[in-house]
Amino acid sequence: MTLYLNLAEMLGARIEQGLYRPGQRLPSVRALSVEHGVSLSTVQQAYRMLEDNGLVAPRPKSGYFVTDHRSLPALPAVTRPAQRPVEISQWEQVLELVRGTPRPDVVQLGRGMPDVNSPSLKPLLRSLAQLSRRQDMPGLYYDNIHGNIALREQIARLMLDSGCHVSPADLVVTTGCHEALSTSIRAVCEPGDIVAVDSPSFHGAMQTLKGLGMKALEIPTDPTTGISLEALEMALEQWPIKLIQITPSCNNPLGYIMPEARKKALLTLAQRYDVAILEDDVYGDLAYNYPRPPTVKSFDEDGRVLLCSSFSKTLAPGLRIGWVAPGRYLERVLHMKYIGTGSTCVQPQLAIADFIAGGHYHPHVRRMRSQYQRGRDLMSDWVARYFPPGTRVSRPQGGFMLWVELPESFDTLRLNRALLEQGVQIAVGSIFSASGKYRHCLRMNYAARPSAEIEAAVRKVGETALRLLVDHHSEA
Amino acid sequence: MTLYLNLAEMLGARIEQGLYRPGQRLPSVRALSVEHGVSLSTVQQAYRMLEDNGLVAPRPKSGYFVTDHRSLPALPAVTRPAQRPVEISQWEQVLELVRGTPRPDVVQLGRGMPDVNSPSLKPLLRSLAQLSRRQDMPGLYYDNIHGNIALREQIARLMLDSGCHVSPADLVVTTGCHEALSTSIRAVCEPGDIVAVDSPSFHGAMQTLKGLGMKALEIPTDPTTGISLEALEMALEQWPIKLIQITPSCNNPLGYIMPEARKKALLTLAQRYDVAILEDDVYGDLAYNYPRPPTVKSFDEDGRVLLCSSFSKTLAPGLRIGWVAPGRYLERVLHMKYIGTGSTCVQPQLAIADFIAGGHYHPHVRRMRSQYQRGRDLMSDWVARYFPPGTRVSRPQGGFMLWVELPESFDTLRLNRALLEQGVQIAVGSIFSASGKYRHCLRMNYAARPSAEIEAAVRKVGETALRLLVDHHSEA
Repeated sequence: MTLYLNLAEMLGARIEQGLYRPGQRLPSVRALSVEHGVSLSTVQQAYRMLEDNGLVAPRPKSGYFVTDHRSLPALPAVTRPAQRPVEISQWEQVLELVRGTPRPDVVQLGRGMPDVNSPSLKPLLRSLAQLSRRQDMPGLYYDNIHGNIALREQIARLMLDSGCHVSPADLVVTTGCHEALSTSIRAVCEPGDIVAVDSPSFHGAMQTLKGLGMKALEIPTDPTTGISLEALEMALEQWPIKLIQITPSCNNPLGYIMPEARKKALLTLAQRYDVAILEDDVYGDLAYNYPRPPTVKSFDEDGRVLLCSSFSKTLAPGLRIGWVAPGRYLERVLHMKYIGTGSTCVQPQLAIADFIAGGHYHPHVRRMRSQYQRGRDLMSDWVARYFPPGTRVSRPQGGFMLWVELPESFDTLRLNRALLEQGVQIAVGSIFSASGKYRHCLRMNYAARPSAEIEAAVRKVGETALRLLVDHHSEA
Repeated sequence: MTLYLNLAEMLGARIEQGLYRPGQRLPSVRALSVEHGVSLSTVQQAYRMLEDNGLVAPRPKSGYFVTDHRSLPALPAVTRPAQRPVEISQWEQVLELVRGTPRPDVVQLGRGMPDVNSPSLKPLLRSLAQLSRRQDMPGLYYDNIHGNIALREQIARLMLDSGCHVSPADLVVTTGCHEALSTSIRAVCEPGDIVAVDSPSFHGAMQTLKGLGMKALEIPTDPTTGISLEALEMALEQWPIKLIQITPSCNNPLGYIMPEARKKALLTLAQRYDVAILEDDVYGDLAYNYPRPPTVKSFDEDGRVLLCSSFSKTLAPGLRIGWVAPGRYLERVLHMKYIGTGSTCVQPQLAIADFIAGGHYHPHVRRMRSQYQRGRDLMSDWVARYFPPGTRVSRPQGGFMLWVELPESFDTLRLNRALLEQGVQIAVGSIFSASGKYRHCLRMNYAARPSAEIEAAVRKVGETALRLLVDHHSEA
């Protein structure tokens, strides 16, 4: 199974990178079979998959061609947030998003929920069930505050994929990435400290800064290459920044992957100004291109990067298993972990360790990456079709979140209220800014297997936005 | 099964309360059978159980008598901690206690681990296994930050036992009681604030105060009636206290239950000085007497009590499911919950809700209460037998922790080090004080089913203590 997926991913990556352009003919099935030492049927399977993803189309007797019908919407502009430290607002909007219990009659496009219905997750459920039947009931005991050692060994192995060499003793298992973030922030910062953040930025991390009494300094961010190093350097000159908090690989909400050279340059900056880096890598393993991008942490030599991640996006969020590789801040993070939750729920840790040790992690993640990439393409198409003209859309390189920018005057809070009556929920843009910017933006989740229901929901979002825009203009 | 247990508990309680004194004759089997409308064999079962617990002894042809051979060691003295707010120390000692993975070759008398081997927990494991086999995989999804509604409904019902009338909407499910404590403290206090605590006090709660930058003001505490209200009132007059943090029911580590009248008086004090109360009730359901004592929260009329609890002591700590009933601080607690961990692990929540709904909670807790009470009696006897003369011992009214006080000059840190070589771990007294007092005290866990191995471990503690005392004196 894995051969054709690998091949499809490689071809898909080349198309994405522009090595094969729209309308161009792709290598023949026979040529690829010889080049990669795989069977003809494997190549055919790979092409069929790319065809499913809308990336290639067969022409009778001529082979496969890169599709050219897709007219991608324009990318969002580089962001221009307020260039001074601010108290973080927007808690009420975040609360509205996270408070509700998922309802079957509402299409949830707003939350960071992966697709957990894949058959490739079945071995995880089997492990969970088996653990409950074991006579020694390992799930009922306290574990130590570091987290289960078998799981930490597996995480240390997974982290090699992103270029990180850490030992299990360097890791602390946490209650989801959320706790990884909060323990890391508290390990480095005191209330009143200034933290530089990419902008837009994950609302959970920003609410954590708010709750802990820190101020956020939002740095302009490019929707394809990430946080502006030039602006960051200026900020480091001007303000006593304690921590740089970023999501450089498969950013949430923008979806970019910061190029490797820029990751290195960021680290150099942090060294020069002696600042710690909190790197949120929770979507990193869901990069569409293989191999996955290296982390900033992988270049770190003096332990100043605290890498935070979890299985909430790659496996399932209900398990609440994350981790932090805190570098030189290990002792502080352990203390903060202890005071926050004591230790982490044991059974999911053991089940995930089993799942990875059984070789199920990579096939699952590969499968989800393909599904999410296809979801991105479809949802981008739907936005292009149903949203008001001039709408800008991100071009995610991993994960399952689309960032949509409407005209500057637009208010997505109003849109969200209008949509809830129609059974659709989106994430409003303002929660991704410390100062409530991005009111004209929204984030949508394309993780679920594409369906007519989801297309109808996206259509409702677009058409409702158009209606509100027209109302607004006629009022003005 | 439950009838004889109820009866045994009632009789045990009367003996404890001194209604039947040592050497006195107890009611005949026939009389009790008539009085309580139960069969003769039920009464006989109850007496056999009390006999097992060492509370009664049969005399041929005369019936049952209260045993009088037990010479209970003296109770610890009222504590006299430093009467000023202090920065909390002792993190290194706590870390040593919680960092280790439980090892089969070490008898762990130090940690707060209940006995999870009871057959009455089996239905919980069945629920966990069944949930993993369900097609809709409820355990994999995010729940809302309040916690699962089915579980909150069950918790609200359980809380009626302690006199509390709360609705599910008043509850927030947390990652163990630890998170209940940390969210509550952060909901009420800012760094630098002063928190009044009973003393000795649970090390986890104090490390949380430390990690969040608060100062602890330790209040003298009576080993049978709890925090001194007189000393507390003086402290409230003298210092700008923001929060009173106490464990009034089955206190950890002293085991007392604060009398109802004193609980009410404490609340009146808090009202007068307009201070919030954090009530840790994590051992409350394990009170040996039935019905369990009311909480301070049950008398609260203006929402100033934040009640924190969990299933870690009543069911199993590895599940990491706790809760908080935060009263007027609900919104703040929700925010702190969100920034700390986002949401709580889902599957254990669903399994516990099933377990309670299936009627398994009360029989399990009843069974554990009896076992723990017997454990207390045995361990108290062992301490009386094996420890140096003059050792003082607490008389817990619930839970499974014994507090042991050695001569003032004694150092339990040295004792602990000497014991680790012998495969025994205790909790040193100094971690239960913000200022590192109680160095001459230690806490031992008697949750596990009594065995020769545990008796041998307690004997090692006592004999090693004696040896160190003799060494100390010959050095001096």
